[in-house]
Amino acid sequence: MSKFPWQDRPENSNDVLWRYDENPIIDRYAIPTSNSIFNSAVVPFEDGYAGVFRCDNKAVQMNIFAGFSKDGINWDINHEPIQMKAGNTQMIDSDYKYDPRVTFIEDRYWVTWCNGYHGPTIGIAYTFDFKEFFQCENAFLPFNRNGVLFPQKINGKYAMLSRPSDNGHTPFGDIYISYSPDMKYWGEHRCVMKVTPFEDSAWQCTKIGAGPVPILTDEGWLLFYHGVINTCNGFRYSVGAAILDVNEPDKVKYRTQPYMLGPAEMYEMAGDVPNVVFPCAALHSHEENKLALYYGAADTVTAMAFGHLTEIIDFIKKNSL
Amino acid sequence: MSKFPWQDRPENSNDVLWRYDENPIIDRYAIPTSNSIFNSAVVPFEDGYAGVFRCDNKAVQMNIFAGFSKDGINWDINHEPIQMKAGNTQMIDSDYKYDPRVTFIEDRYWVTWCNGYHGPTIGIAYTFDFKEFFQCENAFLPFNRNGVLFPQKINGKYAMLSRPSDNGHTPFGDIYISYSPDMKYWGEHRCVMKVTPFEDSAWQCTKIGAGPVPILTDEGWLLFYHGVINTCNGFRYSVGAAILDVNEPDKVKYRTQPYMLGPAEMYEMAGDVPNVVFPCAALHSHEENKLALYYGAADTVTAMAFGHLTEIIDFIKKNSL
Amino acid sequence: MSKFPWQDRPENSNDVLWRYDENPIIDRYAIPTSNSIFNSAVVPFEDGYAGVFRCDNKAVQMNIFAGFSKDGINWDINHEPIQMKAGNTQMIDSDYKYDPRVTFIEDRYWVTWCNGYHGPTIGIAYTFDFKEFFQCENAFLPFNRNGVLFPQKINGKYAMLSRPSDNGHTPFGDIYISYSPDMKYWGEHRCVMKVTPFEDSAWQCTKIGAGPVPILTDEGWLLFYHGVINTCNGFRYSVGAAILDVNEPDKVKYRTQPYMLGPAEMYEMAGDVPNVVFPCAALHSHEENKLALYYGAADTVTAMAFGHLTEIIDFIKKNSL
Amino acid sequence: MSKFPWQDRPENSNDVLWRYDENPIIDRYAIPTSNSIFNSAVVPFEDGYAGVFRCDNKAVQMNIFAGFSKDGINWDINHEPIQMKAGNTQMIDSDYKYDPRVTFIEDRYWVTWCNGYHGPTIGIAYTFDFKEFFQCENAFLPFNRNGVLFPQKINGKYAMLSRPSDNGHTPFGDIYISYSPDMKYWGEHRCVMKVTPFEDSAWQCTKIGAGPVPILTDEGWLLFYHGVINTCNGFRYSVGAAILDVNEPDKVKYRTQPYMLGPAEMYEMAGDVPNVVFPCAALHSHEENKLALYYGAADTVTAMAFGHLTEIIDFIKKNSL
Amino acid sequence: MSKFPWQDRPENSNDVLWRYDENPIIDRYAIPTSNSIFNSAVVPFEDGYAGVFRCDNKAVQMNIFAGFSKDGINWDINHEPIQMKAGNTQMIDSDYKYDPRVTFIEDRYWVTWCNGYHGPTIGIAYTFDFKEFFQCENAFLPFNRNGVLFPQKINGKYAMLSRPSDNGHTPFGDIYISYSPDMKYWGEHRCVMKVTPFEDSAWQCTKIGAGPVPILTDEGWLLFYHGVINTCNGFRYSVGAAILDVNEPDKVKYRTQPYMLGPAEMYEMAGDVPNVVFPCAALHSHEENKLALYYGAADTVTAMAFGHLTEIIDFIKKNSL
Amino acid sequence: MSKFPWQDRPENSNDVLWRYDENPIIDRYAIPTSNSIFNSAVVPFEDGYAGVFRCDNKAVQMNIFAGFSKDGINWDINHEPIQMKAGNTQMIDSDYKYDPRVTFIEDRYWVTWCNGYHGPTIGIAYTFDFKEFFQCENAFLPFNRNGVLFPQKINGKYAMLSRPSDNGHTPFGDIYISYSPDMKYWGEHRCVMKVTPFEDSAWQCTKIGAGPVPILTDEGWLLFYHGVINTCNGFRYSVGAAILDVNEPDKVKYRTQPYMLGPAEMYEMAGDVPNVVFPCAALHSHEENKLALYYGAADTVTAMAFGHLTEIIDFIKKNSL
Repeated sequence: MSKFPWQDRPENSNDVLWRYDENPIIDRYAIPTSNSIFNSAVVPFEDGYAGVFRCDNKAVQMNIFAGFSKDGINWDINHEPIQMKAGNTQMIDSDYKYDPRVTFIEDRYWVTWCNGYHGPTIGIAYTFDFKEFFQCENAFLPFNRNGVLFPQKINGKYAMLSRPSDNGHTPFGDIYISYSPDMKYWGEHRCVMKVTPFEDSAWQCTKIGAGPVPILTDEGWLLFYHGVINTCNGFRYSVGAAILDVNEPDKVKYRTQPYMLGPAEMYEMAGDVPNVVFPCAALHSHEENKLALYYGAADTVTAMAFGHLTEIIDFIKKNSL
Repeated sequence: MSKFPWQDRPENSNDVLWRYDENPIIDRYAIPTSNSIFNSAVVPFEDGYAGVFRCDNKAVQMNIFAGFSKDGINWDINHEPIQMKAGNTQMIDSDYKYDPRVTFIEDRYWVTWCNGYHGPTIGIAYTFDFKEFFQCENAFLPFNRNGVLFPQKINGKYAMLSRPSDNGHTPFGDIYISYSPDMKYWGEHRCVMKVTPFEDSAWQCTKIGAGPVPILTDEGWLLFYHGVINTCNGFRYSVGAAILDVNEPDKVKYRTQPYMLGPAEMYEMAGDVPNVVFPCAALHSHEENKLALYYGAADTVTAMAFGHLTEIIDFIKKNSL
Repeated sequence: MSKFPWQDRPENSNDVLWRYDENPIIDRYAIPTSNSIFNSAVVPFEDGYAGVFRCDNKAVQMNIFAGFSKDGINWDINHEPIQMKAGNTQMIDSDYKYDPRVTFIEDRYWVTWCNGYHGPTIGIAYTFDFKEFFQCENAFLPFNRNGVLFPQKINGKYAMLSRPSDNGHTPFGDIYISYSPDMKYWGEHRCVMKVTPFEDSAWQCTKIGAGPVPILTDEGWLLFYHGVINTCNGFRYSVGAAILDVNEPDKVKYRTQPYMLGPAEMYEMAGDVPNVVFPCAALHSHEENKLALYYGAADTVTAMAFGHLTEIIDFIKKNSL
Repeated sequence: MSKFPWQDRPENSNDVLWRYDENPIIDRYAIPTSNSIFNSAVVPFEDGYAGVFRCDNKAVQMNIFAGFSKDGINWDINHEPIQMKAGNTQMIDSDYKYDPRVTFIEDRYWVTWCNGYHGPTIGIAYTFDFKEFFQCENAFLPFNRNGVLFPQKINGKYAMLSRPSDNGHTPFGDIYISYSPDMKYWGEHRCVMKVTPFEDSAWQCTKIGAGPVPILTDEGWLLFYHGVINTCNGFRYSVGAAILDVNEPDKVKYRTQPYMLGPAEMYEMAGDVPNVVFPCAALHSHEENKLALYYGAADTVTAMAFGHLTEIIDFIKKNSL
Repeated sequence: MSKFPWQDRPENSNDVLWRYDENPIIDRYAIPTSNSIFNSAVVPFEDGYAGVFRCDNKAVQMNIFAGFSKDGINWDINHEPIQMKAGNTQMIDSDYKYDPRVTFIEDRYWVTWCNGYHGPTIGIAYTFDFKEFFQCENAFLPFNRNGVLFPQKINGKYAMLSRPSDNGHTPFGDIYISYSPDMKYWGEHRCVMKVTPFEDSAWQCTKIGAGPVPILTDEGWLLFYHGVINTCNGFRYSVGAAILDVNEPDKVKYRTQPYMLGPAEMYEMAGDVPNVVFPCAALHSHEENKLALYYGAADTVTAMAFGHLTEIIDFIKKNSL
Repeated sequence: MSKFPWQDRPENSNDVLWRYDENPIIDRYAIPTSNSIFNSAVVPFEDGYAGVFRCDNKAVQMNIFAGFSKDGINWDINHEPIQMKAGNTQMIDSDYKYDPRVTFIEDRYWVTWCNGYHGPTIGIAYTFDFKEFFQCENAFLPFNRNGVLFPQKINGKYAMLSRPSDNGHTPFGDIYISYSPDMKYWGEHRCVMKVTPFEDSAWQCTKIGAGPVPILTDEGWLLFYHGVINTCNGFRYSVGAAILDVNEPDKVKYRTQPYMLGPAEMYEMAGDVPNVVFPCAALHSHEENKLALYYGAADTVTAMAFGHLTEIIDFIKKNSL
């Protein structure tokens, strides 16, 4: 059993999510070739944790790397990127890979990421051991980003959230869900959440995208997501959360009007892309009522925040749009 | 048996495609509510022809209408748009419908079109009689346009060309193919054709999109497509053609460097969107060695052009990029 | 009493507005210096008609000129632009003048136009004889266009429609109303009509602006206005109409979903700015149940259309959004 | 009598304006709901100071809050935004409120701010006690920002500076003045100051806007203003000053070529909008020859700077464009 | 001696430049491969005329072709583009060639054109017979267009006008002059003419570029040039003229405020790029007081206009900015 | 003989270039008028060093200043900008000067910089003593930046690298070389290096520009250059290096795929233009195997980095694209 990474809320804080006081947990130069390590995903694995990490190298090429940790905080990241083998297809072209998510379904770990195939789309792979990875057919046509699998089948089908995009710094974006009987063919696409009107909640008025793998709770699926406002000096990414219906996850039960975490620390406000907090993974323990959120900061480093699951759900319900 | 719509090549012409001399065949105000009728699709039906027509009304709302013709040239278009019934889904939302294509596969006529579901995507429906239409799941997530089915299954699966887009006047666009076992879930997405470098063939350097349903020939699938150049005064749409491999249609065998039909007549150069010729349908007769191409002109009216199949294929092979 | 300019509806037409068959009534080169004459305003005057005409010269400088006509169709336009004298202010700077409207209130003719004062704003002047014109304070701060006075005071105050803009080819624009006790200070600004969602009525989804001076009818104020759609090849301007409440003209009772006149003739589709019909003036006779609409075509020439007042109002009510 | 907030110039400094060494004086999270507190206004009130504060909440909704201070540096800001009552109108709609200014004229405190009514325009309200606020008609049509009243009538009329804008991150902007006999109807609009050519003074070459309420001095009206340069990485806001003619305040007597305060401290260079110093209020004492300037930093926090009035005026005159 | 191509002014015309009544003189499909033939240059040659013609082929690749004519109106254009031989360099790369000008200096004909070398720049070649062409070093770094040689050395050096540009549909552009001792190295760059303020002469407020080779007259160098205004529906190109000082041709003596020829005929308003008249060549006879201007229309066809030299010069002087 | 400015590599570092630990060496306010001092050039001079410094003043006007140092680290910069005298021309207009480079050729020091003459182009001057400077003809037509001379003639001609640009925040840019027999006329322009495809090396995929004067080594010319990536929050400038062929310097022998120095320190990530490291000068000693690189940080301050020449060349060769 893995020890849950945790730090209590500071005494003077009322925040529902609070930062780890030794952030960032992973520095931009943590492996020899890296320019930045951020927007990465972790899961419990064996007696500790495993993860898939976005490491841009110093040519600013984007790729994903496996890594391991005993405590979820201190990480050993491989120095070589993941080499994919053929899964349900021979077509495993990839110009680049970034922003991975990882989840365990039935018998294996599934990885999704933003895969470069004539533009960004959603790549899928599975692994049993974080050593061998088997790449499958891309889920969708380009252009798409932020593909996030649910951690179990819904009505007998795999379900994936995604964010249709364009081929550049997409200035729009809503969250959709799609279903698949077999992880190869996808359909039944439904719109789940759209950006909000500026007057209602400006931090999420430009684009939004699913963050970590949704967490099943008594209230429904707990989904952290990022939202973006376009200021006169660029995009600003913050973190909010929603509760989706358990069986019909295209139905949004609650959704935060305020953000839950916004760029405010120097490692979030300065870096390769200033003013970004971008959540990609979360560990949770219903027993301990704990959540540990992993997020990229300023597209440069990896940081953590913590919260109590019940408080988080309570906050979302009380501050819902 | 339907009489093939036809007009011989003018004496002084060497063109491989030549225009009908009474173009446009359908005027912008051909039905009482219409602002424009263009980018429409026809197929042989009973002893004549049936079609699905894009008619924008005078509120400039886009919708598709059924129509019928004895000779393929003179058309009776219904005054009310097609009312869809539920096909393989209850989700038949549609903010708008435009640019239909029609083809017969096995036992029924399939219609694809650009369907408004939180932006443009590919709608699918079938009909047996052009009276009742049954709408199916959208093929893809938005944003997509120019979804064109192959007229038969390929390797046991339905195959569709499409052109991933953005949510506006997309300034980019390539042609992809996707497969489906059941017309509901789609995957195995492959890039088929991309825009050309400006220096190589400028008329198709901004975006391209599949036109009529591909025609099976001895050389492979004959695909007419539109290409766009972005001049300082806007987009200019022309018509070219390609030959795709019969069994692996993501492989392009030939593709025209010159366009085959460009905006040059006044009804193509002036209208709601000047300088557009946009092919959406073609009738063909291998026996008579004839092809009749239907195209929208200036996004306003519908026009026709003719050619001999063997000459067309010969032209494509001799003028290939 | 002026003879009303008129031509009966063509036999084969069901249009509620129909074009004059000798359009354009004023050619682009009608005066020696002109490049184009369009977006002009006329009123009954003495035993005929007078008008204020936008004539851009061959340096493409925009100015307004007085003109006179016996029949409202054949016009003599002065060869020199209007020279303003000081009205209620000494500040009569003007970098350019365009798109005039004219109306008679109480004892004089008021002219409003788009006036260049550090960008476009609404200029105001009055005349008693169309020989001497007295310029008043600009109504608003820049940037504004399409300022249109009501032909009588409302609740004891002058009332003006306008369309706040930016300093270029404004890609947005709604119609507002403002009030003034004295034609010098303006306030009580209210939004009257906004653009429509693309799905509801696309021809007016980009920007709208008031056209001729509103006409008092039993149903309320009849307001023709222009609406704009942004196609991939530029703006397209059409004509619609609304009925505003008599006493609270910021309340819209009816508003046409379809356009009533769209660019379709060659002199509307080709010219300095293709695909523009832009109404600036209308003559009406309740007795004869006639309306004569003056509009600029392709920002190049001036044209006319006709209709029966009762049919027009009936059309608006039956085709209201 | 209020104690003037003050800190002497640091020994090693020659700056005409110097920063408070405990900046920022108001943190972004100073009230429970706030994301940021900046661009706020203060005035002497009773034996201390009162103010109106822009607090964006964590939904990034913009609103204004009353606050109080004994020393002008340590502030108690209400946790609830100002609830307006009807002043000279029933129309007190407001989608959002930001960037307030406050001044005392004759018998009451007047507040102006950027008011959301179909886009930004200038809202006006008055209060006698900073408890009850009475909202009046908006001064202008949208789109406008940075409305700043003069602290006394000029030639018998209220006078307001403003900056006509567009509906987004306006990339242009000059300062105008308008007059009103009654705070309801406004006219006599004049251009006061425009942006400078890049070669002459680049920090103010993109847009400018009035800052604090002008201060009457022997030389004329002392006006601090912000200027913006558009770098390849976004807008950069600095502070300059001008002297306007006392009786004809559209006449600029002097205007600084160099900025007087530019973003240089970390709390000015990093935050929600990096590289912004934005002045909205100033306290002054002619007797003590002191000025205290309040400014927003990085659109995130509130900071102060100090200077001697005579030095400031001397600087402006010696460094005038 | 060549017969001068000519047609008298129409009786009802007062225009200083009037069109040939059988325009266009060269159709878009005049050679088998062409999509359009326009922006071409002619000179007297032997007992008739020779020229270099821009023919875009149906792949919309731009190239230049030699052609010959007895009367300057009816042209035989080679079906193959000019094949360059090495002149003063081996580096004769060219991705594309367009918009040629031709002039005779001392012993040979010099051709300049827009040459594709990593973007548009100015290509130079010479010929003695319009059969063999020898390509020289490009005059300038990219990006440049509209390079036009003076027909004789000035102060012992070759002189060339050009228009620095960017790598796309350049939305700016002024005319410069550069000098060379040897047609290989260029320097002494001076600005000659800039765009005009919108208020002064709007048709030339966006960009300008030299047209035909300047003509030496008693008043100085007569330079026809094109000017562009950016309307809401795209660029509009017109023709104006200037007189440059004979010995210091960077000094502009006169320059027309009005245009002399603007798009007004259907072949100028409709075509691949609507609303373009673009002059590239002129024949003149001081003896006969005649000028024949060749211009591209709508970037599609070639047309002619005529005028009397003395009237033209008189017009320029009387209508100078 | 000057003492070489130097600091050994930190013990824990493997970097081929490492920063000076007291960076920045020149503060933004180092002279009384300055807003920022960056992108500056230094050379050995007498028994120490001289330099030409870009100092933007507080009006944000760009100019160049001479400065002197004993150790290359501590600098005395003149308080007045360089006043040019006429060199090989009387035309020494200059709206602004920035980003200087300096090199010694034969008998004098040559300075090149970005010179404002109707937009940015390359200015040239020479000096013998850093007191008197003689301005020559601009090398090129606008628009150009980053003009860098080679430190000796190549094949008997002066050689200059430059980066053709546009008139704004150029979003493109490649490095070219041009030759001159006399520092007055320039030609034989060749493309040297272009931006890289995003997938190959993203940090240099938007634009690149030559940095310090190239250094002659056994392998060829060592050229440091800057590369730019366009993130969603603006441009990010990093430093790479290339080896050019000694005799044919338009031939690139090696070029780094990874950057060698990227913005990572706070003085590089925050400032007037965040995320900029921009190299303009380098000192080297083959004997001591040392290189000292001067670079602008955040367009605000000047910083230094160090490296061993052999290691640098080895790194370039091993990490070449």
